[in-house]
Amino acid sequence: MTHRILVVNPNSSQHITDALHRSVAVQQDGGIAVDCATLAEGPPGISSHTHKAEVVPPLQALIRREEPHTAAFVIACFGDPGLQASREITARPVFGMGECSFYTAMALADQFGVISTTDGSRPRLARYVRELGLAQRFAGSVAVNIPVVELANDPDATLDRLARCGEKLKEMGSQVLITGCAGMAAYREALSERLGIPVVEPALAAVGMAAGVLRSRASAV
Amino acid sequence: MTHRILVVNPNSSQHITDALHRSVAVQQDGGIAVDCATLAEGPPGISSHTHKAEVVPPLQALIRREEPHTAAFVIACFGDPGLQASREITARPVFGMGECSFYTAMALADQFGVISTTDGSRPRLARYVRELGLAQRFAGSVAVNIPVVELANDPDATLDRLARCGEKLKEMGSQVLITGCAGMAAYREALSERLGIPVVEPALAAVGMAAGVLRSRASAV
Amino acid sequence: MTHRILVVNPNSSQHITDALHRSVAVQQDGGIAVDCATLAEGPPGISSHTHKAEVVPPLQALIRREEPHTAAFVIACFGDPGLQASREITARPVFGMGECSFYTAMALADQFGVISTTDGSRPRLARYVRELGLAQRFAGSVAVNIPVVELANDPDATLDRLARCGEKLKEMGSQVLITGCAGMAAYREALSERLGIPVVEPALAAVGMAAGVLRSRASAV
Amino acid sequence: MTHRILVVNPNSSQHITDALHRSVAVQQDGGIAVDCATLAEGPPGISSHTHKAEVVPPLQALIRREEPHTAAFVIACFGDPGLQASREITARPVFGMGECSFYTAMALADQFGVISTTDGSRPRLARYVRELGLAQRFAGSVAVNIPVVELANDPDATLDRLARCGEKLKEMGSQVLITGCAGMAAYREALSERLGIPVVEPALAAVGMAAGVLRSRASAV
Amino acid sequence: MTHRILVVNPNSSQHITDALHRSVAVQQDGGIAVDCATLAEGPPGISSHTHKAEVVPPLQALIRREEPHTAAFVIACFGDPGLQASREITARPVFGMGECSFYTAMALADQFGVISTTDGSRPRLARYVRELGLAQRFAGSVAVNIPVVELANDPDATLDRLARCGEKLKEMGSQVLITGCAGMAAYREALSERLGIPVVEPALAAVGMAAGVLRSRASAV
Amino acid sequence: MTHRILVVNPNSSQHITDALHRSVAVQQDGGIAVDCATLAEGPPGISSHTHKAEVVPPLQALIRREEPHTAAFVIACFGDPGLQASREITARPVFGMGECSFYTAMALADQFGVISTTDGSRPRLARYVRELGLAQRFAGSVAVNIPVVELANDPDATLDRLARCGEKLKEMGSQVLITGCAGMAAYREALSERLGIPVVEPALAAVGMAAGVLRSRASAV
Repeated sequence: MTHRILVVNPNSSQHITDALHRSVAVQQDGGIAVDCATLAEGPPGISSHTHKAEVVPPLQALIRREEPHTAAFVIACFGDPGLQASREITARPVFGMGECSFYTAMALADQFGVISTTDGSRPRLARYVRELGLAQRFAGSVAVNIPVVELANDPDATLDRLARCGEKLKEMGSQVLITGCAGMAAYREALSERLGIPVVEPALAAVGMAAGVLRSRASAV
Repeated sequence: MTHRILVVNPNSSQHITDALHRSVAVQQDGGIAVDCATLAEGPPGISSHTHKAEVVPPLQALIRREEPHTAAFVIACFGDPGLQASREITARPVFGMGECSFYTAMALADQFGVISTTDGSRPRLARYVRELGLAQRFAGSVAVNIPVVELANDPDATLDRLARCGEKLKEMGSQVLITGCAGMAAYREALSERLGIPVVEPALAAVGMAAGVLRSRASAV
Repeated sequence: MTHRILVVNPNSSQHITDALHRSVAVQQDGGIAVDCATLAEGPPGISSHTHKAEVVPPLQALIRREEPHTAAFVIACFGDPGLQASREITARPVFGMGECSFYTAMALADQFGVISTTDGSRPRLARYVRELGLAQRFAGSVAVNIPVVELANDPDATLDRLARCGEKLKEMGSQVLITGCAGMAAYREALSERLGIPVVEPALAAVGMAAGVLRSRASAV
Repeated sequence: MTHRILVVNPNSSQHITDALHRSVAVQQDGGIAVDCATLAEGPPGISSHTHKAEVVPPLQALIRREEPHTAAFVIACFGDPGLQASREITARPVFGMGECSFYTAMALADQFGVISTTDGSRPRLARYVRELGLAQRFAGSVAVNIPVVELANDPDATLDRLARCGEKLKEMGSQVLITGCAGMAAYREALSERLGIPVVEPALAAVGMAAGVLRSRASAV
Repeated sequence: MTHRILVVNPNSSQHITDALHRSVAVQQDGGIAVDCATLAEGPPGISSHTHKAEVVPPLQALIRREEPHTAAFVIACFGDPGLQASREITARPVFGMGECSFYTAMALADQFGVISTTDGSRPRLARYVRELGLAQRFAGSVAVNIPVVELANDPDATLDRLARCGEKLKEMGSQVLITGCAGMAAYREALSERLGIPVVEPALAAVGMAAGVLRSRASAV
Repeated sequence: MTHRILVVNPNSSQHITDALHRSVAVQQDGGIAVDCATLAEGPPGISSHTHKAEVVPPLQALIRREEPHTAAFVIACFGDPGLQASREITARPVFGMGECSFYTAMALADQFGVISTTDGSRPRLARYVRELGLAQRFAGSVAVNIPVVELANDPDATLDRLARCGEKLKEMGSQVLITGCAGMAAYREALSERLGIPVVEPALAAVGMAAGVLRSRASAV
């Protein structure tokens, strides 16, 4: 039997969903199928508490529709919008991409750092890390401050900037990094080689953990 | 290309390794192969800081031998013996079964509880959770106090005792449980159904996270 | 000039708004006017993350409408739904009734305890206290487990049950109590006398802090 | 009936009491009267643990004398001298100006910073914040290092220096500031406008919370 | 050269000073002399913040008088009254008996528990442990609730009661105990034997740490 | 009767043991004898988790041999290798030099800082401080980054470098320093004078605490 993981992009940008799909496809195999869906009713991007609340009703509707043929859900936005509310309406496990990236990083090293998109998002991140009770493992965040759409325009310059953020995070004690935005996913491997420490891509981390949990449930010792 | 995960049972009990293998085999597929090895030089069981130190040299020797044809290691003992020392001698990721069970549980719910084997192990567990900076997510532990070998003798009675531990842990605020001993693996599913909350089996959790990380590295967006 | 505080009941139950108004009216005087509004689009009661997200859009609409003639807003629900999102859309201060009750209690004594409505809400409360970084001051919560609507039916029996919860909270180290539901407001004084420690009523606490901040802004030393 | 709040300046400097009175007068109205008293036996200023202990006996004597016609006391010194000891001898609520400034700031934003008078006071402040269990909300302190008496001499230069401290505190993550000395009260509004974030003046915060609590007690739902 | 440690009993009860002297005399030898002094101006016992403040001026006077011929001071009261204020007026090290008992216990085992005199002192103790940042090592306290003076009347019954407190503290996770009152000093050894874990007597712990620091300063490598 | 403290240097470098002996000899007197032993089977220096595990078996063998004529053991390496494992095999108290240096520093001031040998050891130190639950008292570490053997070559230059590390640690809030390596012991006094704050030498601190505990046990009130 195949277990289906549905990765929900809670914003309405189909190209992000497409990128997500190319990225997370590696997590599927005979036993696990990974699909990606766009939340058509979501905002183009999610960068506020307002957005985080707005996506909840359509996200819940989508989860209710998909639940009969889905084994686990992944909410593919670094701020984990709607995670608690989604868990209230389905018995299927729901994984948050932000949360799972923290745990995966923590399984690789003691102190994790995050490359944030903007300085404006950093206090929200720090508060979320505290809400999760993980502050003692969090070395801090550094913002790249490039608009997400520009991340793809000049790959070499972008990699340089990401690497500079990474160097600062290493000085701050980070032993593993997390790329805090789907647009940075393409740089994961190059960044890890350049910096000499692991780099965790949140969507892959979340789908990886979801797949691990689903396979575990298939275990009949 | 297939990535091989080597699950090392750091004690010398081959029947535990065999049980581990039956359990974690579900995590393998076309891309991931999972092998299990017994540390012949280890003690029959690991229940002290003395044991934890003793296994390090043979564990490191095993890791050095296996490194050329291994993509990731899992140390399959709940106390994560030799985890830090193993990371010092290999560039491959090394996952601790205890640590990964905490993170997997935390991806499923806020507060985790642990069914411990003996009361004697509980202070070590509490200290390890604090060392990892996770005390705010730890609801506590309850010991079953049945010798590991007896766990298999009377399955119904054992399940009853495990369930009573689980009920206490729920009263203490646990929203997800971890079975703190390989011998409890066979009860994971029944326990989860009886208690109505997820139950995480540490070896499966660690192999699941390892597989997720390895597949992520194969991603070329 | 008179500063207007608008107390928003984010659920649609007008009788709760009426009770709120009777209660918080004491906070107004020549310089401060206190009005109460019902969020007609809200659910009848707020008891889940789903509800907390649903109220955000109408709550923001109400705040936008009322902002021109309002100096400060109070969100009158113990779970502080929409607090962060409301702050994103107005330059006026927005006070959360839950949060303010914690601070007011902490200004009166070291350890605070909460009489919760139901056991189901207690883990959410504990997580919120942790999110706010206040866990070291939180003695715990005890649930009265009486439906809100029944709280008014038999005042003597209700007071007895609330007092029993309070006694347990005192044994757990509470030096000041918070009534975690608008329906308990009428018992604040009797409960404080019976137990011999201060009892904080959240709506009054929040309006009190809001009034204090507004008056401070009028200060021209 | 009018509730009287007595604001006690625990040092012997009458001009500070006069300034306090001008500042906190805005918190009174028909229901609340605010008086200020100087502790004649106190030292001219309070800048050590020695001073903090010395004020306790005369402070307690003053509280005992004033208790019959006082509803609540405010100790108007940022270090909260004698707060615990005062609570031991009166059944009236006693509010600490330092403590209340933290809570009021926390009701306005997540991370608070403090403009301290001198570098010498900063470790005492950090320890007090830790004693109160608030370290997770404290962004840090920056000292202006101008003698209190000079704060009034050149208002423009003083405002500039305070604003530079505030800018540093914003870089350290502060989202709301506290002026850690009565002498800075006159700059509260200008500082808030210059920096674009709320600025809390401790005496006003404490009297505001005291007034809120007293009015709450008048509520008869 | 002999270093003199002066142990100051900050209450006026000479018989407690005498008992202290009998107890701590074992810490002296050729290089270290230990004297004990009674603070004649102190209250008969110290059981409140009021008392803690009152002893500061006479304690400082005593320290100033004795400083010329004293190498280190120990404040011999479990609540460490006047510790910070004493450090402000002398360059000699000043050790707190409460604080040192925590550190000595922590050097012997992970979790310490305290046998308190009365339930009324337990919240003050918990707050002090938090102020010192040691809450993660504190298993809790249990009060014997026998007046200090009665502790000596019926040694067997007293030992029984202390042992029952100790058993409760062991169940709460204590691996080492502290006797929280000078009157319990005589039971240290018997209690440790009965319970099978170390028991720390605070005055001895503080004088021991003071002697260790003084001898260290004599080291000329 | 004389109590013997055995200080075990867990590395095989006899010259370090000799230096230890010269340093800690000051802690002995009529009642306490201090001997030092070299762990011949240890590595020349201990700078990894691998080394920490390797020393456990020979260290335990040494402790077993010496136990009959030893009252307390001190493990004389800043990382406290084998501390927990040693406690499992002997009823005698075993003191860790790193741990005791933290407690001794904390008995002298609120915030301690550590002069580390290398930047590579700093994350291990931070994690150990967290494991011990002392993070709130730890101001941080600064590495001198001079090979241990060179510390003795040019004393003036070494003192200058240590003092510069100390100045940085003071700016970071340290009120007391710890020299994180036996090779720095000779500079303790000069460093303390230069910086104006206490400096704790770990071996002396541990022997001092051990001596204090042993003398306490001799007390028969």
